[in-house]
Amino acid sequence: MGKRVFNFNAGPAALPLPVLEEIQAEFLDYKGTGMSITEISHRSKSFDQVINEAVARTKRLLNLGDDYQVLFIQGGASLQFCMVPMNLALPGKPVDYINTGTWATKAIKEAKILGLDVRVIASSEDKNFSYIPKEYKVDPEAAYLHFTSNNTIKGTQWAEFPKAGKVPLVCDMSSDFLSRPFDAAPFGLIYAGAQKNIGPAGTALVIIRKDMLDRVPDNLSSMLKYTTFAKDNSMYNTPSCFTVYTISLVLKWLEETIGGLKAMEKINQEKGAILYNYIDQSGYYRGTTEKDSRSLMNVTFRLPSEDLEAKFVAEALKNDLAGLKGHRSVGGCRASIYNATTKEGLQALVDFMAAFAKANG
Amino acid sequence: MGKRVFNFNAGPAALPLPVLEEIQAEFLDYKGTGMSITEISHRSKSFDQVINEAVARTKRLLNLGDDYQVLFIQGGASLQFCMVPMNLALPGKPVDYINTGTWATKAIKEAKILGLDVRVIASSEDKNFSYIPKEYKVDPEAAYLHFTSNNTIKGTQWAEFPKAGKVPLVCDMSSDFLSRPFDAAPFGLIYAGAQKNIGPAGTALVIIRKDMLDRVPDNLSSMLKYTTFAKDNSMYNTPSCFTVYTISLVLKWLEETIGGLKAMEKINQEKGAILYNYIDQSGYYRGTTEKDSRSLMNVTFRLPSEDLEAKFVAEALKNDLAGLKGHRSVGGCRASIYNATTKEGLQALVDFMAAFAKANG
Repeated sequence: MGKRVFNFNAGPAALPLPVLEEIQAEFLDYKGTGMSITEISHRSKSFDQVINEAVARTKRLLNLGDDYQVLFIQGGASLQFCMVPMNLALPGKPVDYINTGTWATKAIKEAKILGLDVRVIASSEDKNFSYIPKEYKVDPEAAYLHFTSNNTIKGTQWAEFPKAGKVPLVCDMSSDFLSRPFDAAPFGLIYAGAQKNIGPAGTALVIIRKDMLDRVPDNLSSMLKYTTFAKDNSMYNTPSCFTVYTISLVLKWLEETIGGLKAMEKINQEKGAILYNYIDQSGYYRGTTEKDSRSLMNVTFRLPSEDLEAKFVAEALKNDLAGLKGHRSVGGCRASIYNATTKEGLQALVDFMAAFAKANG
Repeated sequence: MGKRVFNFNAGPAALPLPVLEEIQAEFLDYKGTGMSITEISHRSKSFDQVINEAVARTKRLLNLGDDYQVLFIQGGASLQFCMVPMNLALPGKPVDYINTGTWATKAIKEAKILGLDVRVIASSEDKNFSYIPKEYKVDPEAAYLHFTSNNTIKGTQWAEFPKAGKVPLVCDMSSDFLSRPFDAAPFGLIYAGAQKNIGPAGTALVIIRKDMLDRVPDNLSSMLKYTTFAKDNSMYNTPSCFTVYTISLVLKWLEETIGGLKAMEKINQEKGAILYNYIDQSGYYRGTTEKDSRSLMNVTFRLPSEDLEAKFVAEALKNDLAGLKGHRSVGGCRASIYNATTKEGLQALVDFMAAFAKANG
């Protein structure tokens, strides 16, 4: 089957090997249809089954009731940055945002382009977004409170989600979606670009509480209205079929092989502990975020110098440890350890880190 | 490799078998990276090569000069229905549209939602969209003239594109893109959902003439501006990577195996002739469109009764001829014979049609 490396890419990112093998095995003949999944009509019974399974598994994994709908919308989280305020703003009311870095900043920018009364009620910009803000005051009149659950670039993550009383939470959960269980009740809307924890790039998965659909303005373009997707099970037009198909297989793996979100969380905690514990006791590597804000998905760290960082990334790759370069906007190193990465991979990484520190200390 | 049928789906549709085989072969280890193409960063050299090759091949196949850019934008043709008027309308000027059925009708609807001065300068609605209008008068002041080159549902196609003088043409070319050569010079913008002739669902390919970018309003949401995609080689955010990758392989097949668009056109003409000639002399099947408006991509036809049509579709499937049901909005039968379908498949289809006519005449 060729070589396989340990893949620490930030996204598109590692997918579970059994899922990739299943896709490969049935790629020329999807379940006896004589067609590739890429050649099958989205109006067919075969594809209905695929998308319905992806929806049902998402709802089961998160214990979502009938008051929530699961949608697939192309354009990634970036399109959601504008769709959220276009659809969920309320006349004369502010929209509240918490700024934890790049992605939250972009979401704020898009709400402002629409001319809304955007209130940034908390920000960690004062310390280069290295922590999750603890103090904020949500306007009880706000149409929603938007936050980003995990920052892939800075390596921060909300350990517990913000409290907003009766104001619905709206969350960009792209980079830690389905990495742990949570109570969906306070959320009006959750969105996640697929290419971190649940599949290849090509769609966002959107969970919307049905009362939010009443807010959607009539005069919006059809493809920008959540109601368009909610009415037709995400098939007003052709969805990103291959992405949805792969998501359905990843969710099957998450339910049936891993055993659900509690089990996934435990594995993710163990993986995070392997790497953070090593970093903290190494005396060579140092984490870049405050400890109580550390992400279990994206572990950011620095070496003694930028030259050593470049050498580290290059030598790691030679040792089949891929994707360890930090985001171009911040430099340094980063290991993205999403659901599909393994403890075996984490152990190989810290073994290499120890050897590198010894040789270059 | 399992069963393979002759696939006459309207979209998602047949892809060239050698392309599917290449994807399958390298699915677990893309060119020695040790990762699946679905796991590779869109910021990597590997993916840069993929998207640059898709762009370069599109430009070579269509003889596009440096005044055109090729973009990949998620959301299919349906999102383009609103992006086109959002980006290309000009203050105080009308936008002209020609209505040849469902897709053109939707494009018109989206321009109207934006409150523009939409002029429908020709329509074939009077005869149920069974022909391509010959008479129309473009307003020389119009910001653009929009038309749909091929109607998948009604089975009509523009044999020659409309003339609009200095008014830029804007075309939804989803269902016959790269099926024949044409002169791009009169076009300000061309868009095509991938899932007919060039790949799986998950992106639109957009060709834009650079002077059109000057029209893009500043205050538009980032993901709805053509300039956002033009500035960053379609990678402002993560594109639908697997779709772009498959497109690049389909375009390689089109250039290197088929031999370019002139050769492709000849094959498509021959395939169309096999089916239309048979229908016309059968005395059993009848075409639904005027002869000079017939599509070489979607061949629509009726049988003596709806019961026989249902029987025909079911028996065809048993004979490994898939996807022959007409669109749910019009009924009847339809064979979609895009680039990737073969003469062998067309011959198998007319052989079956002849046998069915004999048995059910």
